[in-house]
Parts: sequence; C-alpha cells; structure tokens
Amino acid sequence: MAIKMEALRVEKNRIAVREVEQPKRDDEALVRVILSGICNTDLEIARGYAGFRGTIGHEFVGVIESMPNSGAEARPRVPQPSSSAGVGRLGRARSDSEPSLTGGLLQVGQRVVGEINAGCGNCDLCRAGDPRHCPRRTVLGIVGRDGAHAEYLRLPVQNLLPVPAKIADEHAVFTEPLAAAWGITERASITSDTRVAVIGDGKLGLLCAQALALTGAPLLLVGKHPEKLRIAERRGIETENVKRAEKRTREFDVVVEASGVAPGFALALNLLRPRGTLVLKSTFHGASEIDTARLVVDEISIVGSRCGRFEPALDLLKKSAIELDSMISEEYPLAKGVLAMDRASKKGILKVLLRP
Amino acid sequence: MAIKMEALRVEKNRIAVREVEQPKRDDEALVRVILSGICNTDLEIARGYAGFRGTIGHEFVGVIESMPNSGAEARPRVPQPSSSAGVGRLGRARSDSEPSLTGGLLQVGQRVVGEINAGCGNCDLCRAGDPRHCPRRTVLGIVGRDGAHAEYLRLPVQNLLPVPAKIADEHAVFTEPLAAAWGITERASITSDTRVAVIGDGKLGLLCAQALALTGAPLLLVGKHPEKLRIAERRGIETENVKRAEKRTREFDVVVEASGVAPGFALALNLLRPRGTLVLKSTFHGASEIDTARLVVDEISIVGSRCGRFEPALDLLKKSAIELDSMISEEYPLAKGVLAMDRASKKGILKVLLRP
Repeated sequence: MAIKMEALRVEKNRIAVREVEQPKRDDEALVRVILSGICNTDLEIARGYAGFRGTIGHEFVGVIESMPNSGAEARPRVPQPSSSAGVGRLGRARSDSEPSLTGGLLQVGQRVVGEINAGCGNCDLCRAGDPRHCPRRTVLGIVGRDGAHAEYLRLPVQNLLPVPAKIADEHAVFTEPLAAAWGITERASITSDTRVAVIGDGKLGLLCAQALALTGAPLLLVGKHPEKLRIAERRGIETENVKRAEKRTREFDVVVEASGVAPGFALALNLLRPRGTLVLKSTFHGASEIDTARLVVDEISIVGSRCGRFEPALDLLKKSAIELDSMISEEYPLAKGVLAMDRASKKGILKVLLRP
Repeated sequence: MAIKMEALRVEKNRIAVREVEQPKRDDEALVRVILSGICNTDLEIARGYAGFRGTIGHEFVGVIESMPNSGAEARPRVPQPSSSAGVGRLGRARSDSEPSLTGGLLQVGQRVVGEINAGCGNCDLCRAGDPRHCPRRTVLGIVGRDGAHAEYLRLPVQNLLPVPAKIADEHAVFTEPLAAAWGITERASITSDTRVAVIGDGKLGLLCAQALALTGAPLLLVGKHPEKLRIAERRGIETENVKRAEKRTREFDVVVEASGVAPGFALALNLLRPRGTLVLKSTFHGASEIDTARLVVDEISIVGSRCGRFEPALDLLKKSAIELDSMISEEYPLAKGVLAMDRASKKGILKVLLRP
C-alpha cells in the first residue's frame, strides 16, 4: 500500500499543499526533509517558468530514511577512470558505509544535503563527474523530478553529502544557494586584485557578496534596502545605494547581476570597465534588451552562472564564514506552504523556510 | 596657405564628397591614401551610429607623405618600462629610420597601414602598450578623428606599420578587418579541438571563417548566399545554409556572430553547447532581446570582440593565407564615394574599395 505524505505542488493554474504518494524509486535514496528553503526560482516556477508541474523546492537539509536496494541501478553510475577531466565529488560512487570527504557516513539516519542535478550517468559530462549540464538530467523540483517542499524526497546516492555535526539545520539548508554563489568563482577569475561589484541585496545578492568577499577582492554590494545592506556591512562589506552607484562608471572588473531586474542589468553593464566580466546570476522574467554595441565596442564578457559545487559551500558553513541567521525572515510548517510562498514574494522578506 | 583635398564626409543628414583642408598636426605622420575599404561600420555611421561627423573610413593602405616635426609630441609616447604587461608593438616608440618588426622603415615614401585607435599616451592602458580601450582615445573615421576615405589622413607614427613589398595594395587594405577577425583568438580559446561555427557570409564572416580555420579547429560557416559561401569552400571550409543550420542544436564550443542581425544572434545561441562561448563580432542596430534564462541555465558566455592587432594580420597576408581577390566586389574613384557607399549597402556586394 502506498504511503501518503504532504507536498507543495505546482499545478496548472495554482499552487497547493496536497497529499501525494511518497516518491518511490528502488535505485535512489529516500530522504526525510527536515527543512526546505524557498528560492526565487520557486516563485518563478509557480508563475509558469520552465513549465514544471509537481512538487517544487530544491534547497533542503534532511535525513536518509532508506538507501537503495542492493543490486539496484545506482551503483553502475561510476565514471570511467579514463575520463577523469574535471572529476569532482560526483565522480566517485560511494558505498553505504564509505566516509565522505566532508565527514560522516552515507547510511540510514545520516543528515544530508543534496546536489540538485541528477545526470543520466552515461554521457561524457556525467562520466567526467559533472552532471550539471547533462542534456538528459533531471533537476530537483525544477525539471522532471519532484522536489524538496515535501515530507520526503528521493535523489541518487551520489548526489548526497553528509552534513558535519556542527552545522545547524537552519544553516545547512543554505548549502545549495551558497554553492551557487561560490560557483561564480568557477566562471570568472576573482583574486585579491579584482574590483568586484554585486548588484542586488536580496537573498542571492547577500550570499554572493558574502562569499566573494572571502576571496579578498575589494567588493561593493549595491542595493536599495538599508536593513538588508546592513547584513553585509556587519561582515565588513562596503555597500552603496543604487542611486549613488548609478553615478559611477567603468570602475569594476567583475560585476555580478543578482537583482533579477532589467535596471540592475543596465547598471551592471555601466559599472564594468572595458573587457570586464558581467556575471549573470539570476534568471530574468522573459527576454532582456541588451545594448550589443556596448558589448562589442568595450569587449565586455557576459557569463551565465547557475549551480555550484556543494563541498566548498559546506566548508564555508563549517567555518561560520557566512552570516545566515539574519537572512532567515520567517519559518512555516509545510502545511502553510502556499502562505509561505506568498510571504517569500513580498518586499523586504529574505529567506522563508518550510518545516514538514 | 591651406592645401585642399577630397574627402567622403558624414554631415548632419547626408554623406557627400567635399573639398576640405588637408589634415594638419605637427606631432603626427601625414599619409597619402592609396586605397581605402568600405566597412559596414561606415554604413552604420552614415546612418547616425556613434554620432560621428567628419571624414569616415578606417581601412586603408597608403604612403607616408611627411613625418612629424622633430621635437614634436609624438616621441614622448613611450611606455614606462615598468608597466610592461601586454606590451605589443604599440609599446615601443620608433624613430624614423628604425626597422619595424614587419620589415621596412618608417620614413617618407614608405607604404603603410595604420592601427585605428590613437590613445592618450598617458593612461595605464596606453602605457602598457595597448590603446584600444583608452578612455580618451580617438578612432580613425569613427571617434573624434577624420578618417581614410580621403586623399590624405594623419595618424600617430606609432600607429603605422610598414607593408612588406610582396603584399599587393588590394590585399593590404584588408589588414584592419583581418586583424579584427584574428582578434577573436584574443577573446576566446580556439584550438584544433574546438568546434567553431561562424554565422554570416558577408565580408566580416568570410574573413573570420578564413582566419579561424587556420587554427586547425573544425569550422562551419553558416550563410545564405551560395556564391559567397563558395569563397570559403575554395579554402576547404565547410559551409551550410542557414535553414539547415537551424536544425542543429548545442553542437559548437564557440560560435562567432558576424551577421549583424537578430536572427543570427538567436541561431548562434541555439548552436552553442552548455558553457559555450558566443563571440559577438558585429554591432547590431540598437538593442537586442536576449534570452537571459538560457544564458544562466546553460552558463553561456557572450564576449564582445572589436579590434585586433595588425602584426598577425600582416603576417597572414604575407603568407597569402586568406582568399581576398574574390571578396573585392567593386572599386570606385573617391569622387564617386557616395555611389560606392550605396553599392556597399546592396545585397550580394562584398568589399567596395575607394581610390583617391
């Protein structure tokens, strides 16, 4: 008999908390969700972005409830030793009792976080250990796979990482967005000489600013909300109101666009020196007008940045390098998921958590 | 008494060949133009792009008519030896009789081509030997400096390069656009493993395809005009009609957009693999709509590319590595410059040359 559970679902014209069957796949681990976090991508999916239907949510911390059946399909997802380029953590299969790089064992009862891209296991990218761009990937709560705003979720074992004991649940739930923030360093060269600006003082901008400041680069966070900017200031980060920043021009080597709105993009372009790099971190609603002549004449680079690796993020959390407590605005039981989504969309609200 | 000459001028609402005074600056070399080439940028400037008024044209081959007066300001443009990062040819001052890297002496009577960006000589970029992004630069026939569709032009001595004797005038006049094509290799890593597509079979696309094919990279030129594509085919380059190319998806590591139209940009994006690089080579008319979600999700890079260095271009011309004769559609005397500009804007026409 199927076991029922609650989940926050995107349906054709609405979102709702529904009673659904527990996810079931013998080749994956079952994880009981402790906490999940609402991301702006969840809000966009609820508005129809990406055409997803099902349980949303991709930021979570949970506990392994059951491991795959032995002899199941999870095991063969071992990369060929010959295709070792770029092999990271995902390039290794792990047995149930193997200690992971971050400490702890992948076994029932272990507290875990999980990388959200699940690759096919067979393409060149997957075999090289990085399924983030596998063309047949599913993505937790985003593409073809039910997500984390639920009592339980399933993921391939190789997506899971044990959470060190000293990281609180309320911090571990930030692993995925923090990995995405740190992932910028995979896409743009940032050293202690690089003049960096981050546009946007929302959840993502605050994480990007805090993470990138750890590189030692001189960094300016640009935003509109004094109370949000203060979170970064408490970490010693220089901040500035958008209006003042608009008077600057061509001062920065790297500008991270994390506001998700067209004026933020225009400001980012304006702040860049010739041959500078604009990191596009947030998806916009629809298409944006871009002054291509400016890109050519000043030889600007625009680089998209999506998911990062979890290990450096867990490392930053273990060191308490990021101020997170003041980034949590509200917490709701999963049953109030629809209200929580509405709250997360309001001005001035940062992270909203759901607890099943 | 001022000496008069003919020049093709952009005025408020029209273009016209006018009798004007010979350009005069004691600190620069005077060059008698042998041939100049009409670029699409000239057509855009005539339509109002960049707000330029004056003599247009930036592709030329000519002969040094006079050198700067001794003691004039040209000499102090010597970079500080300490700021040697990126020092290229422009990083060295040259005396009148100094042999250049490409052979020949910079003296009256020497046949030359000229880099079009003239820097302030004092900023960090200029002192490092690369004035292409100097914020106070003038640009021949584009920004604050009369151009090459004239009997004479002036440029700083350090912008001039002698043309080896074996390069015909009709080939030397392609140095600037060929340098721009080869400049792509400064902006994107291209090796013999890189799958490259070039979109656009106009003048610029044909030069980009021919230049980049010399890297050994497997390369596809995409265009609409069989007779233009055949120019590349004769050099052993694979070509394809746009309609067929539209059926491909995510196959290329680097795509060069050289069509200058929005559908070309959309096709370029579609042809790129995740984490691929789109090189934006041509300026569009106005702003373009860009699907920023695609850039973020697939972590695409868009890099603008404008001017290249002249030395590698002269080297390619010396080796006859580029098929140019079939790229010259028509030649007119300078007096018929307005007609020539009209012809250059017609479908099916490649390079149009002007001879004063």
